[in-house]
Amino acid sequence: LDRVDCRSSSKTITLPGLVDVHVHLRDPGATHKEDWDSGTAAALAGGFTIVGAMPNTSPAIMDHDTFELAKSLASSKARCDYGIFLGATITNTTLLNALAPESMGVKMYLEETFATLPLRDDLNAWKEHVINWNSPFPICVHADGRNLAAILFLGHLYNKHIHVCHVSHKEEVDLIRDAKLRGVHVTCEVSPHHLVLCQKDIERIGSGQSEVRPKLGTEEDRQALWDNLDYIDMIATDHAPHTYEEKISAKPPPGFPGLETSLPLMLTAVHEGRLTLQRLREMMHDNPIRIFNLPEQPNTYIEVDMDEEWVIPKKLGFTRCGWTPFSGLKVRGRVTRVVLRGKLAYLDGKVIAQPGYGQNVRT
Amino acid sequence: LDRVDCRSSSKTITLPGLVDVHVHLRDPGATHKEDWDSGTAAALAGGFTIVGAMPNTSPAIMDHDTFELAKSLASSKARCDYGIFLGATITNTTLLNALAPESMGVKMYLEETFATLPLRDDLNAWKEHVINWNSPFPICVHADGRNLAAILFLGHLYNKHIHVCHVSHKEEVDLIRDAKLRGVHVTCEVSPHHLVLCQKDIERIGSGQSEVRPKLGTEEDRQALWDNLDYIDMIATDHAPHTYEEKISAKPPPGFPGLETSLPLMLTAVHEGRLTLQRLREMMHDNPIRIFNLPEQPNTYIEVDMDEEWVIPKKLGFTRCGWTPFSGLKVRGRVTRVVLRGKLAYLDGKVIAQPGYGQNVRT
Ligand SMILES: [Zn+2]
Ligand SMILES: [Zn+2]
Ligand SMILES: [Zn+2]
Ligand SMILES: [Zn+2]
Ligand SMILES: [Zn+2]
Ligand SMILES: [Zn+2]
Ligand SMILES: [Zn+2]
Ligand SMILES: [Zn+2]
Repeated sequence: LDRVDCRSSSKTITLPGLVDVHVHLRDPGATHKEDWDSGTAAALAGGFTIVGAMPNTSPAIMDHDTFELAKSLASSKARCDYGIFLGATITNTTLLNALAPESMGVKMYLEETFATLPLRDDLNAWKEHVINWNSPFPICVHADGRNLAAILFLGHLYNKHIHVCHVSHKEEVDLIRDAKLRGVHVTCEVSPHHLVLCQKDIERIGSGQSEVRPKLGTEEDRQALWDNLDYIDMIATDHAPHTYEEKISAKPPPGFPGLETSLPLMLTAVHEGRLTLQRLREMMHDNPIRIFNLPEQPNTYIEVDMDEEWVIPKKLGFTRCGWTPFSGLKVRGRVTRVVLRGKLAYLDGKVIAQPGYGQNVRT
Repeated sequence: LDRVDCRSSSKTITLPGLVDVHVHLRDPGATHKEDWDSGTAAALAGGFTIVGAMPNTSPAIMDHDTFELAKSLASSKARCDYGIFLGATITNTTLLNALAPESMGVKMYLEETFATLPLRDDLNAWKEHVINWNSPFPICVHADGRNLAAILFLGHLYNKHIHVCHVSHKEEVDLIRDAKLRGVHVTCEVSPHHLVLCQKDIERIGSGQSEVRPKLGTEEDRQALWDNLDYIDMIATDHAPHTYEEKISAKPPPGFPGLETSLPLMLTAVHEGRLTLQRLREMMHDNPIRIFNLPEQPNTYIEVDMDEEWVIPKKLGFTRCGWTPFSGLKVRGRVTRVVLRGKLAYLDGKVIAQPGYGQNVRT
């Protein structure tokens, strides 16, 4: 039997190319974990045709020269389309706006995290960034609790759009819901790992391997995310690869890979009746495109076998990190084909698009 | 010559009884620093006929029993009228609203300070207090920087009136101005010590004696307060007495006395052309009355000799604390007479109203 016949009993559907606005490609600086090549291969394997690369690399992407470096690395290595975030620092409050038109957006780290870009608790620096950023692309924040409330207030005061990364606990999703109901212009994303995992999974996954920021929440936190899914605009993986050796070391860095598992995990939720396929499409394509002012990619789509059941293996096919916290989970649904701007980019386990095929969404 | 003739060459004016919404009377718990008797005597000597007593006493005023204790102490000892604040804690989020009608308001300590009432960085507790407080009396906050932005956001989300205590630095007054310009319902007070003193005065005053929260700011901070005086609703002393021995000890507690010096310091500013007498009246009477929903006191007024020049002494007449950070400053203007609800309460250096004459403004 050929492939088509083999699949005749299963349901294959077509979706637009997915958009993941939040990935860490570790390039420049930590390419043993990931680089623009391996990371965008993992993206295509996961059904993503656009990724937004976070700026907490080494060096961090925080000024003209580092931005040029990232653009150049991406241009030669990326296999799918991409945008590049600028990182806010205490000292670059007046620099970023000039770079904004070529960026995916600006990222503000308001918490201690795996970042070379801490903004500490300096409200003045936060405010200067918010005031000076005059771009249709969002101000993305890593912020918990009171820091989230504070940055949302600044966004409200100065009429800027704040996008909240990886909302993960009841505290934050409740605040964002209430802000939306009050008419505050805020959007947010959730990562599949915060929807699928919680503190009860730490023993099974292993303590170092479970380290992620924001931390895995309680069961109540996880349920609050599902209960408020109507107020969450999009899924983003927060793909943050570290090697297996790093994760089992004495000082495990926080972060999970996610590009190759996010769609299957969310399709499994569709099968379980926890969200509709239409809502998944909104959260993984329509809303990221609209909210990040991204161009539609012509002649771009993915094909998904909705019924294939499989168990997530210890190692995924394309990310360089060599492990996944979802190992052992049974999922239903798999990407079989990706067509990106008219060309076959991925087919049945093979990435076909070459390094350099990917385009910067802002140029 | 009798007193009237002696003053014939000076300008005596009449003002309504002043209102100080922010005093620490140390009673119960630290009556060697102050109590309801000595503190309200100092209030009358300073021209105040209503004071709002903060709840960070020992025990703190945070539930029914401690509130009853404070009301009983005040009722037997106060010489001027008063209101009593309730203190927010991590554990009394559902208790306070029932006590609200008899209170001056609720006080939330969002910073580490001289408080038995810390709310730490627990956004959920902050939010519960804001949501549960359903009273026309304000939610008063001790909050700096990002904590101020966060609590103002909660007030905005849940349509509650936040009153910001002792705004003292450029960062906070700028934020409050911008919030007001954006239509956020927020009010604030400034303490005379933040208008008159700055870090340059620390050497002269002495380092322990200069300890106050919020700390004395830079000259730029102080200037920002004057520059934004139009956005500051009221003067409040934050009268926070500690003894001279405590202030010069190895661990000096933060806080200044202020009741007997605030009006002379502000009148001196009037003489210097830094604010008008009309604006002083708004900031020390009209606005506190309106914003804290206080009753007008019938037949109540004070007489002020506008021209008397004097040097603030080492010890003031009525506060028990025995020192002042304003010692040595030359001021112009002095309270000569206070009439409270038809009775002479203070005359030329003598407090005449007796303990127990003061009434609770909420009953
Ligand atoms: Zn983050
Ligand atoms: Zn959280
Ligand atoms: Zn991230
Ligand atoms: Zn589309
Ligand atoms: Zn305070
Ligand atoms: Zn401050
Ligand atoms: Zn105080
Ligand atoms: Zn009046």
